[in-house]
Amino acid sequence: MVQDKDTAKTLGSDNKTEYDLQGEGGGGGSRPFAYENPTLSLSNDSLKNRTTNEFQGSRDFILINDSYSSSNKLKACIPWMKQKLASKFTKKTLYKRVPILTWLPKYDRSCILGDILAGITVGLMVIPQGLAYSGIAGVPTQYGLYGAFLGSIVYIFLGGCKDVPMGPTAITALLTFQAVRGMGTEYALLLCFLTGVVQILMGLFGLGFLVDFISGPVSSGFTSAVALIILTSQMRDIFGINAPGSVFTKMWRNIFKEIHNINPWDTILGICCIVVLLIMRIVGQLHVGPKKGGAEQTKMQLFFNRFLWLFSTARNAIIVIICGFIGYSFDINGESPFKLIGEVPRGLPNFQLPPFGYTQVLNGTETHVSFFEMVSNLGTGIIVTPLISLLETIAVCKAFANGKPVDATQELLAIGFANLANSFVQSFPGGGALARSAVNNASGVRTPMGGLYTGILVILALLFFTPFFRYIPKSALAAIIIAAVIFMVEVKVVRPMWRSKKSDLFLGLATFIACLVLPLEIGILVGIGMNLLFILYHAARPKISVEKLTSNEGTEYLILTPDRCLIFPSVDYVRNLVTKHSIRQGIPVVIDCSHIYGADFTAATVVETLTKDFAARDQPLFFYNLKPSVSAVFEGVSPKDFVVFYHHDQFDDLLKKRQTKPTNDNIV
Amino acid sequence: MVQDKDTAKTLGSDNKTEYDLQGEGGGGGSRPFAYENPTLSLSNDSLKNRTTNEFQGSRDFILINDSYSSSNKLKACIPWMKQKLASKFTKKTLYKRVPILTWLPKYDRSCILGDILAGITVGLMVIPQGLAYSGIAGVPTQYGLYGAFLGSIVYIFLGGCKDVPMGPTAITALLTFQAVRGMGTEYALLLCFLTGVVQILMGLFGLGFLVDFISGPVSSGFTSAVALIILTSQMRDIFGINAPGSVFTKMWRNIFKEIHNINPWDTILGICCIVVLLIMRIVGQLHVGPKKGGAEQTKMQLFFNRFLWLFSTARNAIIVIICGFIGYSFDINGESPFKLIGEVPRGLPNFQLPPFGYTQVLNGTETHVSFFEMVSNLGTGIIVTPLISLLETIAVCKAFANGKPVDATQELLAIGFANLANSFVQSFPGGGALARSAVNNASGVRTPMGGLYTGILVILALLFFTPFFRYIPKSALAAIIIAAVIFMVEVKVVRPMWRSKKSDLFLGLATFIACLVLPLEIGILVGIGMNLLFILYHAARPKISVEKLTSNEGTEYLILTPDRCLIFPSVDYVRNLVTKHSIRQGIPVVIDCSHIYGADFTAATVVETLTKDFAARDQPLFFYNLKPSVSAVFEGVSPKDFVVFYHHDQFDDLLKKRQTKPTNDNIV
Repeated sequence: MVQDKDTAKTLGSDNKTEYDLQGEGGGGGSRPFAYENPTLSLSNDSLKNRTTNEFQGSRDFILINDSYSSSNKLKACIPWMKQKLASKFTKKTLYKRVPILTWLPKYDRSCILGDILAGITVGLMVIPQGLAYSGIAGVPTQYGLYGAFLGSIVYIFLGGCKDVPMGPTAITALLTFQAVRGMGTEYALLLCFLTGVVQILMGLFGLGFLVDFISGPVSSGFTSAVALIILTSQMRDIFGINAPGSVFTKMWRNIFKEIHNINPWDTILGICCIVVLLIMRIVGQLHVGPKKGGAEQTKMQLFFNRFLWLFSTARNAIIVIICGFIGYSFDINGESPFKLIGEVPRGLPNFQLPPFGYTQVLNGTETHVSFFEMVSNLGTGIIVTPLISLLETIAVCKAFANGKPVDATQELLAIGFANLANSFVQSFPGGGALARSAVNNASGVRTPMGGLYTGILVILALLFFTPFFRYIPKSALAAIIIAAVIFMVEVKVVRPMWRSKKSDLFLGLATFIACLVLPLEIGILVGIGMNLLFILYHAARPKISVEKLTSNEGTEYLILTPDRCLIFPSVDYVRNLVTKHSIRQGIPVVIDCSHIYGADFTAATVVETLTKDFAARDQPLFFYNLKPSVSAVFEGVSPKDFVVFYHHDQFDDLLKKRQTKPTNDNIV
Repeated sequence: MVQDKDTAKTLGSDNKTEYDLQGEGGGGGSRPFAYENPTLSLSNDSLKNRTTNEFQGSRDFILINDSYSSSNKLKACIPWMKQKLASKFTKKTLYKRVPILTWLPKYDRSCILGDILAGITVGLMVIPQGLAYSGIAGVPTQYGLYGAFLGSIVYIFLGGCKDVPMGPTAITALLTFQAVRGMGTEYALLLCFLTGVVQILMGLFGLGFLVDFISGPVSSGFTSAVALIILTSQMRDIFGINAPGSVFTKMWRNIFKEIHNINPWDTILGICCIVVLLIMRIVGQLHVGPKKGGAEQTKMQLFFNRFLWLFSTARNAIIVIICGFIGYSFDINGESPFKLIGEVPRGLPNFQLPPFGYTQVLNGTETHVSFFEMVSNLGTGIIVTPLISLLETIAVCKAFANGKPVDATQELLAIGFANLANSFVQSFPGGGALARSAVNNASGVRTPMGGLYTGILVILALLFFTPFFRYIPKSALAAIIIAAVIFMVEVKVVRPMWRSKKSDLFLGLATFIACLVLPLEIGILVGIGMNLLFILYHAARPKISVEKLTSNEGTEYLILTPDRCLIFPSVDYVRNLVTKHSIRQGIPVVIDCSHIYGADFTAATVVETLTKDFAARDQPLFFYNLKPSVSAVFEGVSPKDFVVFYHHDQFDDLLKKRQTKPTNDNIV
């Protein structure tokens, strides 16, 4: 919070009275000819009941810190850095960066109860999801479970948001699949490690703000495309056919090619499961008795409602158990009419280093693939996966933050270390899953400790239940995924987007299509790139309103008002417009700079040329209401005939002075 | 020129009187509580003496044209397109696109005289430059002359700027050298063809605005780096050594490695030439007798001054002729102590297709390199060369336009067709050379017809003088280049840049270094990229000023004023700040939107969340002075509790209404 020098300066020179610009008529309308940041045009009398803070985002483009700006203060740099470093290692920072220190001392019985209930509920979700998502990621089934316990325990210590259920997610699974491109499970594990490292580095360098550059429409388009791709990738398990492919269009083509090999058992089971899951989902939203907020529910009604909700929430686990029994009972002599997920190794994974290189056997010859080759094979996935995983986690945090700010840096560190830990227990990258977080929140989670109970449940499943997993039909898992992801297709944002900003709808659709036809990470980069082009276009083409006014003295003049900052892509455009109108009208010109909040060197040189051109034509040019910080930028190039005024009487004086000279003669 | 809907709307609801916001004290300061685009807060009485035009750059991000916005008007699309197409092929467009039609009818004797003098002067410059630049580009010597006649004749028909001397330039020669990377002369010719095609396409699609994205500092850094690289590349000819390399650092390393093989004849001649050229340059700035604007010069003085100027301007030609004679006289038995440029083929080049593929002999086997392979080998050079060539040409146009707008599209078409034509006569890419344009202008050129006389002189040189060129020492040509490019190192912009905007100086230096250590085209892309990041950061981090005020009724409230548009990278930042301050203070909050000139869907959703959060806390939140177009964006997502007001009395009413409810209770 640095006090703005502009504010101070302007307040000093602020004028209490206002002047009437219209000479003739002397109408009621008045134009306050004073530096016109509205918050500043207040009387000094009212200074006693105001406190001004200026929050500095971009310092008008000056990235150099204020304390650097004078060479005098440069010398104070070293102690300042020492102080800055020291301030990084305070108790306050420790509490901020290890949030468990804040909430654990206040952890009481009610917290324990809430967390246990939520943790177990989420655990019942994550076990079937983990099994299913490993299919999306293209890794052995158990890897989905391996990623669902250590990370969520690490998150307890570092996580800042109680509702985040750290673990495998559908989106990260798909990103893993597309980054790995069938090169081998080693790549998935290395990607998990690198995702963690990149996230921690981003956290340390404060790059969490990067998610701000993924706009709502791009995010919606991306999520919807992911949902459709995942849905498509599961169709082969529903039909019981073998249809490989990683790009949307190719997958559908392969499905239609193989459709004659359809396995009716798988298809019927899959479709039944989807229908049942959707019904169970609706059941969870039903209520008996009076609604909350109205009359009290009876104990029976309360219990029944709770039961309905739990029944709906645990629907994935229920389906998995039932289908597992179906699979088991049909599995006579080891021959099943369903495709089963097969043997899942029993027990916990080994705690070992992720594979930094491996030996590949190609055509009988062994070649060693080094760490750097693996990294370069993973390509842009190394950047996109951490970013999207963060985006998903931040979305979860925001959804349940009730307007409280979300610390992106802390979340980066938390999921970064969680992913890093997960990479040592053979997992693919994960994050805060949106679907589970809703259940987590609704189950009444109180602290991130809920993750502990989820983790324990997953560990128990790995230790004792894996022998039963082998009987689960693949189509049942596919049904679970499909019944979840169809709600990720964000159809409902289309209408408000259309009403609010049509170009944003276009952008969302473009991202959606790009993600479908291109590899996913390229698709979202295309969307982000297009969105940034919009901003740049916007910076390059300001609006300028042009008006002809008459001064108190009866002199006509032109007033031009640009509506945003003057920076390099726009200055030539502005210069051309100003020149065109000035030459056409041939009367004094005032450029109203009230809305110009920033400028750069290129703008300064163009302003210099402009003043020169006007001087050559002997046409008066004045700048009105220029922010002192912007004025300083312009004055840096020492333009001649550069006149700024802030008050109306100054303007009349200036006009009079210029009119003693011959005007309008040189103007063509 | 579309009339702004906002303007119309707001004028209707404009309020003539102003209100005093401060309850206590009732001080002199007043705050006009009306929609506050300053140009709009005028009385209706003054409407009779104003004309309002709004120039539309970016339509607040809505890239969709106004006529598309309602589905009703969508049907009117096809006739609109027909009309649009028809309007492209009018007589006016023809005159605009073929500027010779405009000036040729008015071409008189004084024009002819001016153009002949200028054309011949430029011709005397371009012949030695052409010979020298072909050395920079790494192509046979005659190619520099081949590129100096047809293009400048084509430019006569299409060029919009009389001062542009189309032909080979130092910068395009270096870009050619770096794009070709020694792959063969075929690539240089193909690059010329592609440069022309890309420039024509850019012109047809109106992409001339792309040069706006190269800011002053980036351009300065790039030009200075080019100058240093060219200087370095010429050092080997000055020293008479063989030191290959294309990157700055590597070239110097090779020079130091080979320095013991120095040829004293070459070195002495080269250094002498540089010294003489610099002295001759200074001589041209000398005057005898009274200065212009003062007393009349005598005829003798006038003649002598003219002579000095011509002597200085023709210095390159003079040096080449003298050194040619030196080379000739030392060339006994075909053994010269100097390195000579050697045989230059006599006569005009063949008019033939540029090489769309060629046959390469590698290790004795012939392989055909196809067009597409050649294109992919040229890489980013295909985009960067046309852009930089345009940048240089536009810079020339602007330097002598006297404030008149420059039509980038027309220049693109003109130099595009000129390069295309040049590619048929075996030339490397060219553009409007800055050094020659100054001479052109100073020689009193009147129309682009000057290029004709330059072209004729070059043709004559090719037909008759080539046998004499072979005796020119290489070090003399190197001296000519060095004496020219040292003035391209823009040291003088450092001071104003430092005073004006320190971050721009940093950017210029960064571009300079990037261009030196990386391939040139990558270097400038890095500079442009960094510059765009500044804009994006700027869009992402607006400033928000926070003030506590007291209403007429004595109620305290918080007023928050963001200073620029609300778009996706900044909205979460703004939301966090607003939430933080609102929760801390717990009083009604007003967001002053006077400076918000645009918004998008992401901003709308965040505003919706914000209103929800405030409603949940039962804290009043009002939006003040929101532009109608921005308000429409926000209302697209149908936020509840979204209250906008434009007048002070509305605000008092709103506060009263809210105060009947209990406030400040739910605020933590």
